[in-house]
Amino acid sequence: MNDDDMMVQGFRFSAVSAGLRKKAGLDLALILSDQDTTTAAGMFTTNRVKAAPVRLDQERIRTGAARAIIANAGNANACSGREGLDAARRSSELLAATIGVKPEEILVASTGVIGQVLPVARIENALPELVEGLDPRGAPKAAEAIMTTDSFPKLSRFTGEVGGKPFTILGMAKGAGMIMPDMATMLCFIVTDLRIETLALRSALRVAVQKTFNRITVDGDTSTNDTVLVLANGLAGNGSLGESGELAFRAGLTEVLGELSEMIVRDGEGASKLVHIHLKGAVDEGQAILAAKTVANSPLVKTAFYGQDPNWGRIMAALGRSGVIMQEERVDIWIDDVQIVAAGLGLGVEAEARAAEKMHEAAFDITVDLHMGRAEERVSTCDFTHKYVSINADYRT
Amino acid sequence: MNDDDMMVQGFRFSAVSAGLRKKAGLDLALILSDQDTTTAAGMFTTNRVKAAPVRLDQERIRTGAARAIIANAGNANACSGREGLDAARRSSELLAATIGVKPEEILVASTGVIGQVLPVARIENALPELVEGLDPRGAPKAAEAIMTTDSFPKLSRFTGEVGGKPFTILGMAKGAGMIMPDMATMLCFIVTDLRIETLALRSALRVAVQKTFNRITVDGDTSTNDTVLVLANGLAGNGSLGESGELAFRAGLTEVLGELSEMIVRDGEGASKLVHIHLKGAVDEGQAILAAKTVANSPLVKTAFYGQDPNWGRIMAALGRSGVIMQEERVDIWIDDVQIVAAGLGLGVEAEARAAEKMHEAAFDITVDLHMGRAEERVSTCDFTHKYVSINADYRT
Repeated sequence: MNDDDMMVQGFRFSAVSAGLRKKAGLDLALILSDQDTTTAAGMFTTNRVKAAPVRLDQERIRTGAARAIIANAGNANACSGREGLDAARRSSELLAATIGVKPEEILVASTGVIGQVLPVARIENALPELVEGLDPRGAPKAAEAIMTTDSFPKLSRFTGEVGGKPFTILGMAKGAGMIMPDMATMLCFIVTDLRIETLALRSALRVAVQKTFNRITVDGDTSTNDTVLVLANGLAGNGSLGESGELAFRAGLTEVLGELSEMIVRDGEGASKLVHIHLKGAVDEGQAILAAKTVANSPLVKTAFYGQDPNWGRIMAALGRSGVIMQEERVDIWIDDVQIVAAGLGLGVEAEARAAEKMHEAAFDITVDLHMGRAEERVSTCDFTHKYVSINADYRT
Repeated sequence: MNDDDMMVQGFRFSAVSAGLRKKAGLDLALILSDQDTTTAAGMFTTNRVKAAPVRLDQERIRTGAARAIIANAGNANACSGREGLDAARRSSELLAATIGVKPEEILVASTGVIGQVLPVARIENALPELVEGLDPRGAPKAAEAIMTTDSFPKLSRFTGEVGGKPFTILGMAKGAGMIMPDMATMLCFIVTDLRIETLALRSALRVAVQKTFNRITVDGDTSTNDTVLVLANGLAGNGSLGESGELAFRAGLTEVLGELSEMIVRDGEGASKLVHIHLKGAVDEGQAILAAKTVANSPLVKTAFYGQDPNWGRIMAALGRSGVIMQEERVDIWIDDVQIVAAGLGLGVEAEARAAEKMHEAAFDITVDLHMGRAEERVSTCDFTHKYVSINADYRT
């Protein structure tokens, strides 16, 4: 990945260290659209406990337009009450004054420890340097600034063409823990130069998120701060998108979000394995997701992944308790292309030995066919490791 | 606990090493009632994938009577198909012939690795020694023989009086992993000398299990083999129980099952902390259980317990995603008697420091008051540790 590649015309990025997190390092990011007609859409956590920035954005995104996103790591500004909401609003007002836009055009996002009010004074102090640092090539730095327990920054870029006009989509995300997004992930920001109406942007985002972020899990814990924001500045100069243009954008957006969500699982807290659970033969989509997510979240299945043990009995037990409509004696299970269960019964030690070899890879697939219907879904997960426990037993202390 | 205490008149127990588990040690247990009019009741896993012994017992328990329970560790005889069912049936027939009762009067139970057929020949070889060893004082040995990753045997005894006649309830259980019982726990056997009709026995069992085993979790994974069996031989010589007698028995049974289920959590795989989640102020019982279980199963909450970190933000996030009807700004949270959250907001570092001290104990309480209604439930759980990962990454290998 070359920094030069991570650009979209009309957008600038910046990041500074504002002292918001315990460890030193970048922790405050800014994304600015230079165009005053930038459409915007967002999706947010379905957790009933919503962070202050989520509440503020849900209010502001209704206009379908925005100019900037200011995001911090180290402090989630969640469970922070009226004071937290004031802090979120105040930081957007300070930024608005500095860059000369309306506060209502600014979206905010926070990630980090829950239960502390965002320290606005530190943001205020950092704002001059943050704005001064705005750079079309600044996306990788911004992606770094929103990391918490992430071990690498997550960026993805897609280029396509609509009516002869090339366009670009650039996305960044952070993940690591408290990840079982329900409507969105922890934090993800997308910018594009496509000209697209708000309604079309919203619907593309909904579809793409459904197929990507809503199909991953690290630990089954849905965050209070999940936020996906997309800004479109229209500089690609395309005409009306039409159905085929909308589909082209949707495909590109799904590709970018898919790549980012996969990076999040690969970089799940302490994870050493990326595992795709393919659930086939369910009676409908909801059932397929239910069964796949139950397998994907089972601590016993996830520790077996870590142990590189093709312990299919745990997969069967998870399927059985998931509530999915199934019959034990119909179930087939594969690890990559090695079948280990046929019609509910194990295929023996030799098959398991070959399956165990596949599990030595950093990524592998589990395919389950229930043979009850025709619905099929895929959920991505990671293993459960000693390091996950270390990270989360020590997170605040 | 004195071995002499662990007796109930008319019941004998035995255990041998039949070579059914990898590690040497007791792995086959027998409980025999000397009375040919022994009533019986059972509850079993709600997992759709049910082990062969569960299927066989569900058939046999309908008569409301039984004479013996034969149970093994090391092999769950689950996902073992027709062959597994034959093996379960055959082992009961062999035992029936040896002790001179009908096969239909024998209940069977298995725990251990899923996906292997029970090796009947080894059980056949071990039967003479098993039967010869029957002893009224043998309960502790039998409790040891059903252990898998358990670190101590689990026994509980209760004595009461009905209509001037003393009676005794003795229970044993195994637990450790794949523990979020739904109707029952992994394996639990209860014997009593009370004279009680089958219908009253069943209803007492249902009520007691609901309040005990169905309120604990180790890892959220419901087993394929969960079984609770109770045998009552009538030797206490009591007359008709009546309502007060039934209530007395129910109270005693709930006490025994409560003690056993608490032991199971305390001995959860790798566990270092026993934590009771009190969920108050929910709109109804189902909501209270839903919220408490979501907190109790959250990997982030459980690793914070391990880290002795009063990380209430993770508790709030778990409540928020549980689906329970709640308002963030009404929630109060305590650790033991130290309040750390009032009206949805943290009470600061001093309160947290005092709460952290409570978490250094081997057992502590988390109390959450949603202030939405009057329903109140308690769920017991344990922490998520490095040892849990070690045990389950290495279980079969």
